[in-house]
Amino acid sequence: MTNLQDALAQNARAVEETLDRLLPLEECPEARLMEAMRYSSLGGGKRIRPFLVLSSASLFNVDRSCALRAAAAVEMVHCYSLVHDDLPAMDDDDLRRGRPTCHIKFDEATAILAGDALLTKAFEVIADPKTHSDPHVRSDLVLGLARAAGNEGMVGGQMLDLLAEKTALNIPEITRLQRMKTGMLIGIACETGAILGRAHEASRHALRAYAHDLGLAFQIADDLLDVEGTEVEVGKKTKKDSASGKATFVKLLGLERAREHAQLLADQAMQHLEIFEEKGEPLKQLAQFVIERRA
Amino acid sequence: MTNLQDALAQNARAVEETLDRLLPLEECPEARLMEAMRYSSLGGGKRIRPFLVLSSASLFNVDRSCALRAAAAVEMVHCYSLVHDDLPAMDDDDLRRGRPTCHIKFDEATAILAGDALLTKAFEVIADPKTHSDPHVRSDLVLGLARAAGNEGMVGGQMLDLLAEKTALNIPEITRLQRMKTGMLIGIACETGAILGRAHEASRHALRAYAHDLGLAFQIADDLLDVEGTEVEVGKKTKKDSASGKATFVKLLGLERAREHAQLLADQAMQHLEIFEEKGEPLKQLAQFVIERRA
Repeated sequence: MTNLQDALAQNARAVEETLDRLLPLEECPEARLMEAMRYSSLGGGKRIRPFLVLSSASLFNVDRSCALRAAAAVEMVHCYSLVHDDLPAMDDDDLRRGRPTCHIKFDEATAILAGDALLTKAFEVIADPKTHSDPHVRSDLVLGLARAAGNEGMVGGQMLDLLAEKTALNIPEITRLQRMKTGMLIGIACETGAILGRAHEASRHALRAYAHDLGLAFQIADDLLDVEGTEVEVGKKTKKDSASGKATFVKLLGLERAREHAQLLADQAMQHLEIFEEKGEPLKQLAQFVIERRA
Repeated sequence: MTNLQDALAQNARAVEETLDRLLPLEECPEARLMEAMRYSSLGGGKRIRPFLVLSSASLFNVDRSCALRAAAAVEMVHCYSLVHDDLPAMDDDDLRRGRPTCHIKFDEATAILAGDALLTKAFEVIADPKTHSDPHVRSDLVLGLARAAGNEGMVGGQMLDLLAEKTALNIPEITRLQRMKTGMLIGIACETGAILGRAHEASRHALRAYAHDLGLAFQIADDLLDVEGTEVEVGKKTKKDSASGKATFVKLLGLERAREHAQLLADQAMQHLEIFEEKGEPLKQLAQFVIERRA
């Protein structure tokens, strides 16, 4: 895993630099907004989604500076969702990546606006010719990202998650919730490289299938961390879901079977990458990393 | 003005139908999200921004069904901004278009998510080939809308507005605030027709100049309504800015000069449309309507 750890760290640095450039702090009366946008997107995180964009892009020899812009845009969408999910009216979290959440550091209104602006900026970055010279590619990326992030994807999943606090979900229902809430953004992250590289449908299909299994494995690993991890390790409040009445994979399957299921999904995810031969290695390693991580 | 009133009503109906089709209520566990999205975007409003899109599109003989999709997308962005601006952490408004605001009708979390989903849907609609067959046009529309709606536009303006509660702004500062908060979305609404119609730069420039003056006239008229209108007429709480310490055009200029300034801007706006000859008539009438409206 040393190679993967290095690759993750190297990519995370490059994404950090790209975000820093795309979100310049300029002197203006409303600078507080950009400060909150930067606070919520810079300085931390494993940058799993950008890693997926960059790794899938490298399968198709996409120009790295283009891939980095797209990776940063996907990460902005992820960061905006964290800012809004942490709000008092939503999950009401004070701690994120080991730091105060945006509405604690700034205030609620600023956090709402910073989230809105990060989401909007993501589309601005993707639609910019600097991200790709072919407008078809840019337009497809916008469409894919919007579908993954909207009411049939991430936002719909968060709505389900809020509603789930009142009803006990079963395995198919949790699977659908997680697919929407986290799976679809992971899916478009994986597919972004293929879109940028104008890859054949077979490659796109393989990446979609990989992402599908990876997303679920990722979520089960998250549930396991919530039960087994400590707050210091994970960087956010743990035992939250286990303390609440919320149904999770771990609660419904038990620790042992949840761990097995995550491994099964990771193995399956890796198999979809066979068509890329040794070029698929980083994405394969990531699937294993995702279920073994301690944070 | 009878012609204009008819045209406004007719376009509002067409936009309503388009929004209704783009936001279908389907049976699913998270249907509450779409209900809130529909509640916040259907059933009311003058639909000024869609009217601007449709009128500018008709200058360049754009297919009406394409223009309606783009008009609906711009309106979604406007509606999302109202939902978030009305939140308790922001302007804390209970009444909008004569009805309870989204977070009152549903709850805060649902309102935050409905806003997020409307913004995301706007980009999805615009990036869809159904809106225009040329990906260049779609990509340009996304870029323009994102710039107008983001941290350098609408969201930045709302941040300024919140900060302005604590400091007394002067005329140039209020002008900049309003230009960002409402002017830029009005600007892209006017320009959308030109982008859809692949119009020459001279036409685009004229529409931008028109929008610039119109946006400011619109805002001054809003300030006048806040002072002079009643809650029943306007459909939202009035006397809000006048009761608060907030600086407005009316407060700084006085009623008389504010009214004169709005008329001057409306006249100026109309002059920019001369190059379109009689085809520019609806947009000219709108400029006069905007400063004379009672709601």
